[in-house]
Order: sequence, then C-alpha cells, then structure tokens
Amino acid sequence: MDDLTKRIGFLKILDEAKSVLRQTPLADSSRMENDAEHMWHLAVTAIVLEKYCILDIDLDHVIRLALFHDVIEIYSGDTYAYDEKAKLDQHKREMEAAEKLFSVLPEEQGSELKSLFLEFEAMETNDSLYANACDRFQPFMLNLASGGSSWVSHGVYADQIRKRMAPIKQVMPEVYRYVEENIESSKEKGLLK
Amino acid sequence: MDDLTKRIGFLKILDEAKSVLRQTPLADSSRMENDAEHMWHLAVTAIVLEKYCILDIDLDHVIRLALFHDVIEIYSGDTYAYDEKAKLDQHKREMEAAEKLFSVLPEEQGSELKSLFLEFEAMETNDSLYANACDRFQPFMLNLASGGSSWVSHGVYADQIRKRMAPIKQVMPEVYRYVEENIESSKEKGLLK
Repeated sequence: MDDLTKRIGFLKILDEAKSVLRQTPLADSSRMENDAEHMWHLAVTAIVLEKYCILDIDLDHVIRLALFHDVIEIYSGDTYAYDEKAKLDQHKREMEAAEKLFSVLPEEQGSELKSLFLEFEAMETNDSLYANACDRFQPFMLNLASGGSSWVSHGVYADQIRKRMAPIKQVMPEVYRYVEENIESSKEKGLLK
Repeated sequence: MDDLTKRIGFLKILDEAKSVLRQTPLADSSRMENDAEHMWHLAVTAIVLEKYCILDIDLDHVIRLALFHDVIEIYSGDTYAYDEKAKLDQHKREMEAAEKLFSVLPEEQGSELKSLFLEFEAMETNDSLYANACDRFQPFMLNLASGGSSWVSHGVYADQIRKRMAPIKQVMPEVYRYVEENIESSKEKGLLK
C-alpha cells in the first residue's frame, strides 16, 4: 500500500472516534459527548485557559497532545474515570489499541503520533501535565453545566472528584478555586455524595 | 464579569458546535457530521497530509486555523458548499456571528481567535490555503467513503466538485490526483451528475 493510501486509510479510521461515546453529557444534556468532539473541545480549552497555567509549556505541542490523546479508544473503548474495575486492565487494552491504530500509518508518522499518545498518558512533561489538567477540567465543566446528571447516575463522591481534579490544582491553581467552589455547591445540592 | 468567568463562558458556548450539523455524512453513513467533530478531523487531517503540501507552511498555525474555522456557525448555521442561494449572504451572516461570538472573551484573546477565523476565510496566506485545501478534502473523503449519498441527494455535478476541490490541486497536487480519479469513478457509478 502506498504512503498516501495509508494516510487516507488512517484518517478514515479516525472518523470512528465520532462514534465512541464518553460518560460526559453535552452542556445542554441532549446526549453524551463523543471522543472526536471531546478532543476538539480539549484542544480549544487548552488555548483559552493557557493564561492560567503556571508551568512553562509549549502550547502548540499541548494542542497536538490533545488532538490524539483518545484516538486509541476507537479500539479500546472509553473507560469511565470513576470505574475502578475497568481501570484495572485499561493500560494494557490501550497499549494494544495504540499498536494496532498507529501501525496503519507510514512508520515515521505512526511513531510520531504514538509518542504524543504515550506522552499524554505518562504525565511526566509540563505539556502533558497541562493537557491532562485541561482533560480533567473540560468534563467537569460539562457535567456542571448539564446539572450533574452523570455524577448522580454514577453515584460519584465529592472526594472522588477532588482526587480526579488534582492535576488542575497543581497546574492551574486559580482554575482549581473555581472547581472547588463548584464541588462544594454541587455537594450541597445533592449532586455529589 | 471576571477574566476566568468569560473564558469558561466561551468554552461552554463552543460546546454548541457539537449540535451544528453539516451536510457531510460520517464514513459509515450512520448520521451527519457536526462542526466540533469536523474541526477536530480537519486538524488531524492537516497533520497527517502535511507531507503532500507543496507550500511553505507553519503546521502549528494551520492547526489553530482548523480548530476555530467553523465556530461562528454556532450563530450563523452551516452553509452547504453547493447551495448557491444560501452562499449569497453567507459572508455577512458569518461576520455578524464572529462579532457576537468572539466578543464573549477578554478582548486580547477574542481578537486573536477572531483573526484565526478571518485568516482562514480570506485564503490569502499559505497556512490558510493549506487549511482550506484540507477542508475541501476531508468532506470529499467522507462523502466517498459513505457511498456518495450526500452528492446523490443534492444532485451534485462532477464539475461542481472539481471547482470546489481546486485548492487541493493548487496546494497538494498529488492528493488531487486521488481526488480526480475518484470524481471520475463516482461519475461512472452515477453518484455525480
């Protein structure tokens, strides 16, 4: 298969990210969000909140991390952040999915994109920490806007959210204040346990 | 309203791009694509096809153009590429929508993002020409993958597609050969008039 055919084949597979549903509702509660929408919303969130990031980052690289961080879910499926059982074999499933997905591309491009996925997952670089902090904030914002229905239906505890939001505290402390205020008020309203 | 509240408000409005439907089906024909998914798919298309771009470009800037090029449709709606009547007042509707949308943000950030939208629209810079070429290719790829149903239902002519795909010919000639071959075969199959 020639180089261009491989690339177009990969882009067609990526189309399937539009059919991988997450556990996060849209802000208007009309339906659940899918991975393609989420990766876009994450990238634009990283751009709009950059001012609040206290780490030294390369925003362009953060955007690339955002654009590919969930593509492997085309093969591994979405794992709900508060599903402790599914998270046990999540890493293994995702690594297999990454191998399968990125090997569709010509080798150099496949390695480059796979390394973006691995960097995001490892949470070791500043860029990855900021991308992950935004990846915690974006669904929090949607859950909040939609009235916390996803938290209620999954019986989520305020302290589970606090633990999950920890990267925001580390990377965007001013944004975390907004998060903490809203965790507290959501608990008062009975949306969180 | 404080700076952070404005930014979060903007990000919540952007969520509505997930509910703006385009005239392009997903590759599996299951439903129409929405703007949020499209902007993500366009950004990743620009990354994956960069090798075929014969212009000198800044890929990171192209990605930013892709990520915001259709957000104003939250207010103006999607205009079908082959609907000549709707295209008559498209520019005016889109400029008003841009003014409304980007003024939600703190001024500096709003101007920055609005200028991305304006640059994409003007098609004057190399980055914008490449972003637009990808923006022609991505729906062509999906229409083709889904069996051309959108072309059939709108009664699209092969020469309309050729005209629409002209930026690809200029910017990615090797990709255009793939496009032309598939226009010809789609015409033979009766998918294009």
